[in-house]
Amino acid sequence: MTRWQPVPFRDVRFTGRFWSERLETVLTRTIPSQYEKLGESGILESLELKDPPPPLRIPRWPNGHTHQVFWDSDIGKWIEAASYALHHRRDPLIEARIEAIVDRFEAAQLPDGYVNFWYLGREPHLRWTNLRDRHELYNAGHLLEGAIAYFQATGRRRFLAVMERFVDHIRSTFGRGEGQKRGYPGHQEIEIALMRLYRLTGDRRHLELALYFIDERGRQPHYYDEEARARGEDPAAYHQKTYEYQQAHLPVREQTKVVGHAVRAMYMYAAMADLAAETGDEDLRRTCERLWQDATLRRMYVTGGFGSSAGNEGFTADYDLPNDTAYAETCASVAFVFWAHRMLHLDLEGRYADLMERALYNGALSGLSWDGTHYFYENKLESDGSHRRWPWHPCPCCTMNVARLVASVGGYFCSVAPDGLAFHLYGGATVETTIGGQGLRVEERSDYPWDGRIVLTVTPAVPLRMALRLRIPGWCRGAAAAVNGEVIDVDARTERGYLVLDRLWSPGDRVMLDLPMPPGRIWAHPLVRADRGRVALQRGPLIYCLEAADHPVPVADLRLPRSAALAAVPRADLFGGIVTLATTARAIRTDDREDLYRSDPPSEIEAPLVAIPYFLWGNRDAGAMAVWLPET
Amino acid sequence: MTRWQPVPFRDVRFTGRFWSERLETVLTRTIPSQYEKLGESGILESLELKDPPPPLRIPRWPNGHTHQVFWDSDIGKWIEAASYALHHRRDPLIEARIEAIVDRFEAAQLPDGYVNFWYLGREPHLRWTNLRDRHELYNAGHLLEGAIAYFQATGRRRFLAVMERFVDHIRSTFGRGEGQKRGYPGHQEIEIALMRLYRLTGDRRHLELALYFIDERGRQPHYYDEEARARGEDPAAYHQKTYEYQQAHLPVREQTKVVGHAVRAMYMYAAMADLAAETGDEDLRRTCERLWQDATLRRMYVTGGFGSSAGNEGFTADYDLPNDTAYAETCASVAFVFWAHRMLHLDLEGRYADLMERALYNGALSGLSWDGTHYFYENKLESDGSHRRWPWHPCPCCTMNVARLVASVGGYFCSVAPDGLAFHLYGGATVETTIGGQGLRVEERSDYPWDGRIVLTVTPAVPLRMALRLRIPGWCRGAAAAVNGEVIDVDARTERGYLVLDRLWSPGDRVMLDLPMPPGRIWAHPLVRADRGRVALQRGPLIYCLEAADHPVPVADLRLPRSAALAAVPRADLFGGIVTLATTARAIRTDDREDLYRSDPPSEIEAPLVAIPYFLWGNRDAGAMAVWLPET
Repeated sequence: MTRWQPVPFRDVRFTGRFWSERLETVLTRTIPSQYEKLGESGILESLELKDPPPPLRIPRWPNGHTHQVFWDSDIGKWIEAASYALHHRRDPLIEARIEAIVDRFEAAQLPDGYVNFWYLGREPHLRWTNLRDRHELYNAGHLLEGAIAYFQATGRRRFLAVMERFVDHIRSTFGRGEGQKRGYPGHQEIEIALMRLYRLTGDRRHLELALYFIDERGRQPHYYDEEARARGEDPAAYHQKTYEYQQAHLPVREQTKVVGHAVRAMYMYAAMADLAAETGDEDLRRTCERLWQDATLRRMYVTGGFGSSAGNEGFTADYDLPNDTAYAETCASVAFVFWAHRMLHLDLEGRYADLMERALYNGALSGLSWDGTHYFYENKLESDGSHRRWPWHPCPCCTMNVARLVASVGGYFCSVAPDGLAFHLYGGATVETTIGGQGLRVEERSDYPWDGRIVLTVTPAVPLRMALRLRIPGWCRGAAAAVNGEVIDVDARTERGYLVLDRLWSPGDRVMLDLPMPPGRIWAHPLVRADRGRVALQRGPLIYCLEAADHPVPVADLRLPRSAALAAVPRADLFGGIVTLATTARAIRTDDREDLYRSDPPSEIEAPLVAIPYFLWGNRDAGAMAVWLPET
Repeated sequence: MTRWQPVPFRDVRFTGRFWSERLETVLTRTIPSQYEKLGESGILESLELKDPPPPLRIPRWPNGHTHQVFWDSDIGKWIEAASYALHHRRDPLIEARIEAIVDRFEAAQLPDGYVNFWYLGREPHLRWTNLRDRHELYNAGHLLEGAIAYFQATGRRRFLAVMERFVDHIRSTFGRGEGQKRGYPGHQEIEIALMRLYRLTGDRRHLELALYFIDERGRQPHYYDEEARARGEDPAAYHQKTYEYQQAHLPVREQTKVVGHAVRAMYMYAAMADLAAETGDEDLRRTCERLWQDATLRRMYVTGGFGSSAGNEGFTADYDLPNDTAYAETCASVAFVFWAHRMLHLDLEGRYADLMERALYNGALSGLSWDGTHYFYENKLESDGSHRRWPWHPCPCCTMNVARLVASVGGYFCSVAPDGLAFHLYGGATVETTIGGQGLRVEERSDYPWDGRIVLTVTPAVPLRMALRLRIPGWCRGAAAAVNGEVIDVDARTERGYLVLDRLWSPGDRVMLDLPMPPGRIWAHPLVRADRGRVALQRGPLIYCLEAADHPVPVADLRLPRSAALAAVPRADLFGGIVTLATTARAIRTDDREDLYRSDPPSEIEAPLVAIPYFLWGNRDAGAMAVWLPET
């Protein structure tokens, strides 16, 4: 099978307005403002290891823990996002800030390599005694990702060296050898980071440690039971009740259901796909595919959101996808993008890219406000107006997750193989890469996702035989294409979701690809009780919603006739120019009669309906919102 | 205004099969089996005042209280129901059992008149220290009602004398005089009982005590605050958070919203209507009407159920009427029947009788199983199959409430005035009464509620001028009537819901009344979110539901086309002969496709739909049930 590799985001430059704008917002507003928030909330101060430590500024949870236990991860994620920003535009101030943080890490790291500011500052004797709850390996993972990104952006090794020493310490501490702890993370993440370190260094020990963490997970006797008893606690008193919470209820390869905390799950699945790709482990690949099917056929919101309950920040039952109480944490959609991207590189199938695109444009991007400085932690699909964006969050994990995703989003656009180049996403992106040692530039020009007309100009350094693969999105019907003006039979030449143009390419060859984007309706599987009798709206990759700001009547009173024709209406006055969906719908009258029960149905009036892209909701005056509209 | 008085149930004899059957079941199965349960659950044993008291057989609540605190009320209610049964049929065994209970009360009553088996047995020093939570006055009320009923059934005064001494003690303890406590019940009920005692004895002090309890309620400084402080408790630590719970948040006459615990509310409103009727207090009447409007226009289930939340066993917000989590306690519907009956005697308007009838046939009667020995405490309007009838309940209040209602249901059929007789309900009932000193028998023959054709034979002792008022139910369209074969213009002669036949009646005069009962649909006010896009089915006074036992496809998958013609189908094979509603509906297919989100709507197939009366659900194999059906 052809081995595909992502084209790194630094080899992808945006010319299209959608991502140019989001990227610019993240670079100029989000990342700088996040540094300010890290300061205001005490996270940076935690690096000072004051004695005594400053009092808690944020509430403890009922189990006595605090978010401060994972503040290191916030620093790691911010460094990662900021490092991506440096690729786009060097910034001495950001670099100086990162360097100052690295100074702290260098100074604080113990001789054995351990570093974690919560434990060093407050309870160093308790390190590695509570993997189940205390996020030490999770923190290490995010710091390692940050260190790799910073090294790749600047060539400076200092932070990476700190983290490599920490990884050495972790490797010596955990494993199946004599005197080692058979532990593994309570919150998965380090597995992804270790795979990045493996790919950066080629040092197979990093892959092996990641594989150990995956394969040790969930075995009996259960590490978390033994660890709890060692702390003098009754394992049965675990506040989350079940190790499904962190997908440690069964050995990973025996897991068939997507359960527990959604972000932990998605990070783990992403790492599993990485491992399967690097090792060719068919059993692990099948496990990934089985979990993918479960996640996407029974437990995914139409926005690419995951997690139905705030109780476990995660999964509940098949088809249990309530809209107003959806959790759908931004981090979970971001992590799903990671997973989908890795599944795509296990097997170049459009179905993976379809959902990667859906989660990216909807469930993930909704986490970031239009102004770049406000956030949703929970991406509900229905609100009575009480759900608002936060300027920050006591648990700010999502804020920097969406920042690092947008700052590196170009990396999700294309992949290369020895004999080809594949476009998964569109939006005005110029890719420079090499294929079989030959340089190649492809300019993709479009106003995607607002318009499906795409022109690609292929410029190899010298005429080049290769297969250009262009994803035909699953939502698209009637795609058309031409090469240098010659019409292509798209259906005949589409393989597993990609139009394959295998030919000798000469500089200046032009491909026209037309992906029609009529407004469309989506219905959910009828076992999704919350969506029974309801319909969602989509155009291209964007899921739409109704927001109070666009409607004179309450959003909840609108009903969409199945026969209503939806029009795509460009609106230059909204969010720098977007395409809305509009029609004449029906509104139930709620004020014409007082009687509680009646022998005739509620009356309806005509009412204009305007839908905006879901990811843009919550950026105007607070009000109700709905993705799923009752049909009439 | 004409003063109407209910015809006592003992003057109404059933010939129709519906109530004959329910009454026979209650007399022969429910009341005897309840006595057994009172024994098994330790309630009768509590009368023995064992030293030490036996250990608790039932769990304490989180606040440390126990149901045993109100076991006296269960005894009172059983005596009341059993006494009604004695009117229908003397039974030496029941009388002996009641006499034995009365022995205990006589023996236990303190010289000052106090009697309460919880306090006497466990903490006599704490009596009257926690009216807010401890149900002493509530117990007294139910015991008093039982004593009155037993006296009326047998002429034996012993129990009544005990309770009259207790009332004297209560009167001396509570009031606005020197040295008295300004307390009032935490759970209202005694007000109704005092009004019954007033009507029995003519002693106005009983009315005045009821009026004191109503008017003292909710005043500042708040009695429950002071009482809590006297116990050494912080009033702010009250586990129910708000005195809305027991309608003591404001002086009663200032209350505009139906709030808190539904049963407490309904008992209080019933007593207020009694007081308004007896005193002519216009302010109190207006308060009753205001609360009636609030209850019935915004906070009532279509079954005549009340209480949307288990949290407070009561009311939440306007139009918040969830079906699957409905509380709708049987007691609340029974108490609403009491209230509606009293409103009807404040003002003979059909709208009161309409809802009295609705709550009686649906929300109240559903609390009793077909076999007479199983119960619903919560009368949900939708179930996934997990909601089942209980053979008994740790808090058995509802069981004997529905028993005492059915055993005395004849009392809700007719009322008399000096110049007329009004029929509120139908069902084959022969009424013997006097009007203006003249004896009168009216035989009402019908198979109501299964059939709306009614024949009344009026037999005065001598020819009698009077207005016979026949309720034309609010659900009925096209009622027709004839007197001795002569057709009456029903619309022209109907006043506030009653057809008025004012004439000189001679023995044997016959009235034919035809109340057409086509199957009908009900829609809820569109602000009831739970019922949006749904419809309920009704025929005559009965609300219908779908139950799994009658359907090959899941009930939740059925959708009713608005155009579907509903047929009334007699079914001799079900519950001794009932009328079902049947049609061909649509069923959503849930097993034909696996994809979670689709570009075309779910497919539907034709499916037979059979609806049974709501009150009969839960009597066959456990399964799902729904009152509100999605429309298609």
